[in-house]
Amino acid sequence: MRKVTKTPSTTLFPVPNVLVSSQLGDKANVLTIAWTGIMNSVPPIVYVSINPSRFSHKLVQESGEYVINIPSADLARAVDYCGVVSGRDIDKFQATGLTPVAATQVKAPLIAECPVNIECRVRQTIELGSHDVFVADVLAVNYSETVLDTAGRPDLAKLNPYGYCLNEYRALGEKLGTFGFSQKQPK
Amino acid sequence: MRKVTKTPSTTLFPVPNVLVSSQLGDKANVLTIAWTGIMNSVPPIVYVSINPSRFSHKLVQESGEYVINIPSADLARAVDYCGVVSGRDIDKFQATGLTPVAATQVKAPLIAECPVNIECRVRQTIELGSHDVFVADVLAVNYSETVLDTAGRPDLAKLNPYGYCLNEYRALGEKLGTFGFSQKQPK
Repeated sequence: MRKVTKTPSTTLFPVPNVLVSSQLGDKANVLTIAWTGIMNSVPPIVYVSINPSRFSHKLVQESGEYVINIPSADLARAVDYCGVVSGRDIDKFQATGLTPVAATQVKAPLIAECPVNIECRVRQTIELGSHDVFVADVLAVNYSETVLDTAGRPDLAKLNPYGYCLNEYRALGEKLGTFGFSQKQPK
Repeated sequence: MRKVTKTPSTTLFPVPNVLVSSQLGDKANVLTIAWTGIMNSVPPIVYVSINPSRFSHKLVQESGEYVINIPSADLARAVDYCGVVSGRDIDKFQATGLTPVAATQVKAPLIAECPVNIECRVRQTIELGSHDVFVADVLAVNYSETVLDTAGRPDLAKLNPYGYCLNEYRALGEKLGTFGFSQKQPK
């Protein structure tokens, strides 16, 4: 198979598309982020990378806290909006109708409409150039009651998440398997 | 909307599901990773988190190089397999039929069948507990010729990638919009 080699770029997909909420004093903001992921399992550690020019950068840096809010596909337009305007100029909660609600471990708000809200406290910041990486411990994970099944487990159909791929937002499609499925049926 | 608070966990999705190839001396291996993401845009910097018990950990740590190979949905079974067996016991290339081919910038091989291959050199390692984070510069991005359109741009339909969500592998579904679409039509 012939390969075509291109110059370095941020080509990795699908990546999450999340709303990061933060608060400093009485000022809260929300920023759309795709440069995020899981770094460690025990203890659970995640990161978000934020360009220092973004208004949220100062809020996260000075408060040392943030919440990663995972949106459903029906919020894709509001999430896109929160990535292209600045909290310096616009109250994005007011502009989008997204609702801040109190978190359990941090001062940054949860976004009510997002079915999953991950409360995080920064443990380390790494400056890499265009972005600062805020490495954080997960302190709590909140779910909207409506996305849990009768046993209290999150239901992927109700969560209806989406990902970010090469500038496109894409809903989830067909289930290809579950972790370990290659061991359960003949190859 | 009532929220249910749970203990900390690695709940962030969808995340990528990739094959990380590495080489030390004449020993090559391939490991499935979901704890990966983009950390910086300029210069392009990514990471993979690897548990020190994995055979690939030593190969990446001592060589200081790896390749992130993005699979298509039709490879999901082989990718799952590469995450549940160890390169200490099994030659995963031979077991899966995946083909190592020479990279342009690193000694670690590209996987021919994966349509995107990202060549990486480690710049920093962060020990977080269960996993070590290998932060790396992207040196080159290779595409299989068959996934590029006539203008040389990657075609998402031909790439046919998938993501990892709550223990499930999920193909991509409906296109919800492109970056900035909230500004182009009335809300």
